[in-house]
Amino acid sequence: LNGGALERLIQILARLPGLGPRSARRAALQLVKKRETALLPLATALEEVARTVRPCRICGNLCEAELCAICADPEREGSQICVVEDVEDLWALERAGAFKGRYHVLGGTLSALDGIGPDKLAIGPLLARLREGGVQEVILALGATVDGQTTAYYIADRLTELPVAVTRLAHGVPVGGELDYLDEGTLTAAFKARRSL
Amino acid sequence: LNGGALERLIQILARLPGLGPRSARRAALQLVKKRETALLPLATALEEVARTVRPCRICGNLCEAELCAICADPEREGSQICVVEDVEDLWALERAGAFKGRYHVLGGTLSALDGIGPDKLAIGPLLARLREGGVQEVILALGATVDGQTTAYYIADRLTELPVAVTRLAHGVPVGGELDYLDEGTLTAAFKARRSL
Repeated sequence: LNGGALERLIQILARLPGLGPRSARRAALQLVKKRETALLPLATALEEVARTVRPCRICGNLCEAELCAICADPEREGSQICVVEDVEDLWALERAGAFKGRYHVLGGTLSALDGIGPDKLAIGPLLARLREGGVQEVILALGATVDGQTTAYYIADRLTELPVAVTRLAHGVPVGGELDYLDEGTLTAAFKARRSL
Repeated sequence: LNGGALERLIQILARLPGLGPRSARRAALQLVKKRETALLPLATALEEVARTVRPCRICGNLCEAELCAICADPEREGSQICVVEDVEDLWALERAGAFKGRYHVLGGTLSALDGIGPDKLAIGPLLARLREGGVQEVILALGATVDGQTTAYYIADRLTELPVAVTRLAHGVPVGGELDYLDEGTLTAAFKARRSL
């Protein structure tokens, strides 16, 4: 019906989270109609993100410099590291404002089903950070899913040799839920009631 | 929190129909994570659409050539022109498969509120097409909204001087609804029961 390029754009848009085939069609048509104010700015923003956005060398957060704003901020408490699965979760915790320490992004969870072993996550870099010293507490802010909890126990086990306290978020995180979906009150409460693992 | 380029991308994505702030964040992070398989293909598709997709010279449908596939198809009935508000509506009618003639895309409806007068719609080009002759029926397939019906009566009025029958879609189109949201059965029934205006 429509041209090949437009069809391709619709198919690519339909794979984005939150967009289905119908909304992808509407989005593509709106982009074509608003070429100067929507399509070209989106193309430019994508190119800019592709060129400039990269993981922070220390924690794995996304940034446009070598270090993210959190790792570069001398005000953040260096003695606490909060371990999260993904950048979404880091952003959710930052929105809650409950934590003033630093982060470590694993890049996922262990998963036997998906064949994700410890070497595919940033667990080695976490151990290296901890061996440099100065960290007193590692907070495992992983989802209350089977994979999240498996990952938390695996990391806690690897950390027993190091002189750090290992805590996890208090239950309050709904079982089976993901951090990114929680309201800020629940995240704050879970942070405050964290306990030794 | 995150870098400027990523923030801009999220803001642009959040303006797309069907995406809110949260889904725009998730979409942007997925794009960054899947740089090679999602971000770069989307950027390429957008550039390609910006470069190649344009309105059909005759009907206003979107295409990559001078004429769209419908206008270029000698099999389509040239004696019937179906007037639609937007390309979405043309696609919806094509999916229903109820019409084998040709189209004319107005590019919107008359709207006193939004200051859209006849000169902002492709009504002049429609009259020019009809004056060339060969068209026996103009089907006004506009939404059953106040603006859609106002536009239909305005166009019917302009066409009284020409030797063409003017019809509109049968009621069956829900009042207040938009064509793009209708199921194919309703669209087909509305086409079959169209009547003189």
